[in-house]
Amino acid sequence: MLTEVEEPMEEFVAAHTVPVPAYEGRAVPVAAGTTIRITDPQGNQIGDLFAFVREDPTEWLSTGATRAEHTRLFPEVGGAFVTQYHRPILTLLADTSPGVHDMLYPPCSPALYAQAGVECHHPSCRENFELAAGGAGMPTKPVQDPVNLFQNTPPNADGELVIGPAASAPGDFALLRAEMDLVLVLTACSYDLGDANGDECTDLLIELDADPLT
Amino acid sequence: MLTEVEEPMEEFVAAHTVPVPAYEGRAVPVAAGTTIRITDPQGNQIGDLFAFVREDPTEWLSTGATRAEHTRLFPEVGGAFVTQYHRPILTLLADTSPGVHDMLYPPCSPALYAQAGVECHHPSCRENFELAAGGAGMPTKPVQDPVNLFQNTPPNADGELVIGPAASAPGDFALLRAEMDLVLVLTACSYDLGDANGDECTDLLIELDADPLT
Repeated sequence: MLTEVEEPMEEFVAAHTVPVPAYEGRAVPVAAGTTIRITDPQGNQIGDLFAFVREDPTEWLSTGATRAEHTRLFPEVGGAFVTQYHRPILTLLADTSPGVHDMLYPPCSPALYAQAGVECHHPSCRENFELAAGGAGMPTKPVQDPVNLFQNTPPNADGELVIGPAASAPGDFALLRAEMDLVLVLTACSYDLGDANGDECTDLLIELDADPLT
Repeated sequence: MLTEVEEPMEEFVAAHTVPVPAYEGRAVPVAAGTTIRITDPQGNQIGDLFAFVREDPTEWLSTGATRAEHTRLFPEVGGAFVTQYHRPILTLLADTSPGVHDMLYPPCSPALYAQAGVECHHPSCRENFELAAGGAGMPTKPVQDPVNLFQNTPPNADGELVIGPAASAPGDFALLRAEMDLVLVLTACSYDLGDANGDECTDLLIELDADPLT
């Protein structure tokens, strides 16, 4: 996938910043037309991104509908993520990373860590999603499959998903435009049993070029 | 993907049959341990398969969790489809088709047909799922992404999904084992705007080697 650096990123000025600490998640209500910058400050960090339609949160970003919309595993720069009703909700305006992202994996979850033999509580994107989305008044069940920004798990020709460290360099970002009023949830992926998040799980940063909705 | 013909199919004797007419869907409650045969009698026909846990239908077959479970786009013969809590719900016992199936597309839907310019009502897997699942007392919202049996839409190396006619020959089938009490829903895909279902949409057949649950 080509990395394309477009005009809007030159013009981006943050009006509102939401740090997302490692092993945590945050929700932010965003007005239609807002540009959203999601940055991986230290590199190699996956961000699980979810989006709800503000006025009716039973409509959300659907990875399945987005694949069907573009007949692609992931939209190209300029393409929109759509809801289950095929309405554009977020457009990918620019991407300074190598353009390796995922829409195949669910969020990491208590079930996944239990299965991997972790006996005590382990933070997970699923629980962090529930905390952040629930705190913003969004429905927390069911948990939809997210857009896994910077996640490097593409299929090979045999259909196997090959897991490598997130390919983002420090400071890489994706720039998105909100196509409707929405609630965005981002979790800094908690998976630390392999190198999917590099050597360690680190922070992410959400910035908006406008004030969030209240 | 290898096509593997295992012992169980030799022994399969249908005790209960549920025909699924073209452009329609059916639901059937199935006891744990039952073997389920899903046949494409005329060939080139996609079947959208959904499954709910009978005792708690807020748990269902999750395509995302199944991909993560196997780190594959689709399980191999012998592998299980799992729920969002990573519990096996259906095991793929055998497959006489070329083994080309899909877990990337949502069901075809009114939104999809409207977007394609169809102005009058068009049958869809989404509506047929809602009718069949609702009739069986299962929740119809949200509509989960299905296992699209026989659907031939694999990604190429550039991440594009390449749509071809379903690769199943007349009489090809997939054999599944219910790993828990479940409600299975199968829709004979209604998509007739291209050749994904061959020249025309045709019937499918569900057979069980035991009586369904009541």
